[in-house]
Amino acid sequence: MKVVKAEIIAIGDELLYGQIVDTNSHWISQELDLLGVRVVRKTTVGDNREDILTSFAEAEKRADLILITGGLGPTQDDLTKPLLAEFFNCPIIEVSEAVEAVSSFFRRRGREMTPLNILQGHLPACCTYIPNEVGTAPGMWFERNGTYWMSMPGVPHEMKKLMKDFVLPKVPQIFDLPVIVHQVIKTVGIGESWLADLIKDWENALPSHIKLAYLPSLGHVKLRLTGFGDSKETVEAEIQAQIQSVLPTIEKYVYGYNEDTLETAIAKLLKKADKTIALAESCSGGYVSHLITTVPGSSTYFQGGIIPYQNQLKSELLGVKAETLGSVGAVSEETVLQMANGVRDRFHSDFGLASSGIAGPDGGTDEKPVGTIWIACVGDGFAKAKKLQLTQDRMLNIQLTAVAVLNLLRICILGKEE
Amino acid sequence: MKVVKAEIIAIGDELLYGQIVDTNSHWISQELDLLGVRVVRKTTVGDNREDILTSFAEAEKRADLILITGGLGPTQDDLTKPLLAEFFNCPIIEVSEAVEAVSSFFRRRGREMTPLNILQGHLPACCTYIPNEVGTAPGMWFERNGTYWMSMPGVPHEMKKLMKDFVLPKVPQIFDLPVIVHQVIKTVGIGESWLADLIKDWENALPSHIKLAYLPSLGHVKLRLTGFGDSKETVEAEIQAQIQSVLPTIEKYVYGYNEDTLETAIAKLLKKADKTIALAESCSGGYVSHLITTVPGSSTYFQGGIIPYQNQLKSELLGVKAETLGSVGAVSEETVLQMANGVRDRFHSDFGLASSGIAGPDGGTDEKPVGTIWIACVGDGFAKAKKLQLTQDRMLNIQLTAVAVLNLLRICILGKEE
Repeated sequence: MKVVKAEIIAIGDELLYGQIVDTNSHWISQELDLLGVRVVRKTTVGDNREDILTSFAEAEKRADLILITGGLGPTQDDLTKPLLAEFFNCPIIEVSEAVEAVSSFFRRRGREMTPLNILQGHLPACCTYIPNEVGTAPGMWFERNGTYWMSMPGVPHEMKKLMKDFVLPKVPQIFDLPVIVHQVIKTVGIGESWLADLIKDWENALPSHIKLAYLPSLGHVKLRLTGFGDSKETVEAEIQAQIQSVLPTIEKYVYGYNEDTLETAIAKLLKKADKTIALAESCSGGYVSHLITTVPGSSTYFQGGIIPYQNQLKSELLGVKAETLGSVGAVSEETVLQMANGVRDRFHSDFGLASSGIAGPDGGTDEKPVGTIWIACVGDGFAKAKKLQLTQDRMLNIQLTAVAVLNLLRICILGKEE
Repeated sequence: MKVVKAEIIAIGDELLYGQIVDTNSHWISQELDLLGVRVVRKTTVGDNREDILTSFAEAEKRADLILITGGLGPTQDDLTKPLLAEFFNCPIIEVSEAVEAVSSFFRRRGREMTPLNILQGHLPACCTYIPNEVGTAPGMWFERNGTYWMSMPGVPHEMKKLMKDFVLPKVPQIFDLPVIVHQVIKTVGIGESWLADLIKDWENALPSHIKLAYLPSLGHVKLRLTGFGDSKETVEAEIQAQIQSVLPTIEKYVYGYNEDTLETAIAKLLKKADKTIALAESCSGGYVSHLITTVPGSSTYFQGGIIPYQNQLKSELLGVKAETLGSVGAVSEETVLQMANGVRDRFHSDFGLASSGIAGPDGGTDEKPVGTIWIACVGDGFAKAKKLQLTQDRMLNIQLTAVAVLNLLRICILGKEE
């Protein structure tokens, strides 16, 4: 089976000057991916004749399906329609059905049409008119030499409506599509290259129709398995078998799959175990609590937190001993354990978590340089503390500490050793 | 003066499959636009030899500056480096300085290098090695026939560091760029269309070589003035005069300029007034504390915070009266004021701030629907509370609450009426 290749062309100066984030291309990619269409390129060009025509000509050489967004407004700087007419070598003519749709759009809203608006019902003679029920710029569908084209407005909800109503149902009718299945394994606590090293034998033994990608982000690595084939059930089963095969090697780092985040994975674990947590955050400054409370329903397991940014408050509010602070300091195993125990007591939670460290850029010493951070997790009959040696960057240190605290909590709930 | 044209090439299957939103291209566009470089095209291609090489060849025909992100990981699916070597027709060689940088990166973290990591110090012989201080994949700079190329990792903070440290200072040295001056006025607490209405006379009277853009983001509107001319000093003076002219109309909404954030603006105000703050965050779940503690040196004015996610803790830790919670509930003016006073007492701060509300998606009632949120700020001899009626979206409610709390604090420090 031939792979169906798609390209997305986004048109508009505002996309190139960084004034608007192009969310359309990302959404279209996701939808086509689910259908088994391979997006091979996305191109963004400005409102410029030559650049637009070149992008059309280049895309036609490569793609079976070309989706164009933007440049369909009624003003002079919008060039997509005349250039499509030029590219497909046909005149722009009045399409009475399209003119009527634009008129009706304005009538329904009780607004006057300008002469410019009426021109939105004039279309290249060689396109199929695709009605836009939520806006004034119609969709235009072209076919030439086995390549299919759709031009849509750049306004996201108009583009999405045309995609859902017309393009997404049409694509499986005109192409013989392969089956593509993705599964993402989410890991934490191990770097990309260590992970690659750990699973290299498994990776090298993957069949050619199953591909692996490493997708690293702050403190996490996602492993994406993509399988191709004729039957969805077969490919899904093959990918599941591959996951089961690699899992024993990496199980301790795996917190979830696909849409799971570390926060939602922890939510599931805590709800299942019927346990509650509380946090004492010094260097992470509330960021872990924030991540936890982004999850709907987190109030069922999150008792609350405290951010004792001054040493005096660590003593007054969490019972950290003044002699501990005086001897080994706030950034120490002893302090962070006392903080975790203190917050567990005060907030009546099953687990108590704490962070204390030097986020930077100032406050470092030779003994405790910027990036020195202690984290702890305590519970019924156990206490774990861990020292992190992170970066020079304050924001990065806060984010990496949060990932480490959440991962330590995950390990504590599971009752495993690191 | 010739317009300097730039293209951005983003490489990675994950960008085409819609699994990651490409925020890099947008950021790079903004930065180049500020320098007066015209971005003429953005291209996204997958981890595919032919597609990557074609994108290089096409870009070279058109652009003066080509910025490439992604595809530089140590694993087999990352192709950018070998394909750059092929495209520029030179071998990949060991660059001892780059190998040493990778080794040192791992040494500082006390971690072992794998053989794959060492290979990250091997680079095309025809590139200039640009150190990456925050990651293991180096930047690579190429020049050929008057076109300049930079290859950077796709990890956003690594790409940004290389852009800021190397590319953005380098570009004005190699190209003859027009004089463009930008100044951004940052406002909070007023919507885009109200602001536009307020300043329309001033806007209509702007000279043609000074352009105004409204850049709205969550709870904020930025006004960007862009001036063009021959002399930097002249354009800067003209823009300053325009700012002084509009300022009296919008002064109460203006918290800063250019790089200022609401958090850094508040930091300046608190340091100048020599005052401290403490926060009791219920519905905002630690997010305001997080924003405040992202600012270096925030420990000089931030005493700390408490997140009393359960009502019992609001009473035990902050002294909120049980009868208040029983009669008017946690989401009320009385409760939020008691929380603000409680946290001010417990944390010995000059100002006490609090939030309490229904972030959603559950927990709403007819009387207090999702998005009902109370915030408060108390200090020596005053107490302000404010009710917000926000959205159905949990994350949005958290973020908008944070902006409202910070703005309320700003107003309290300034001692002004809203």
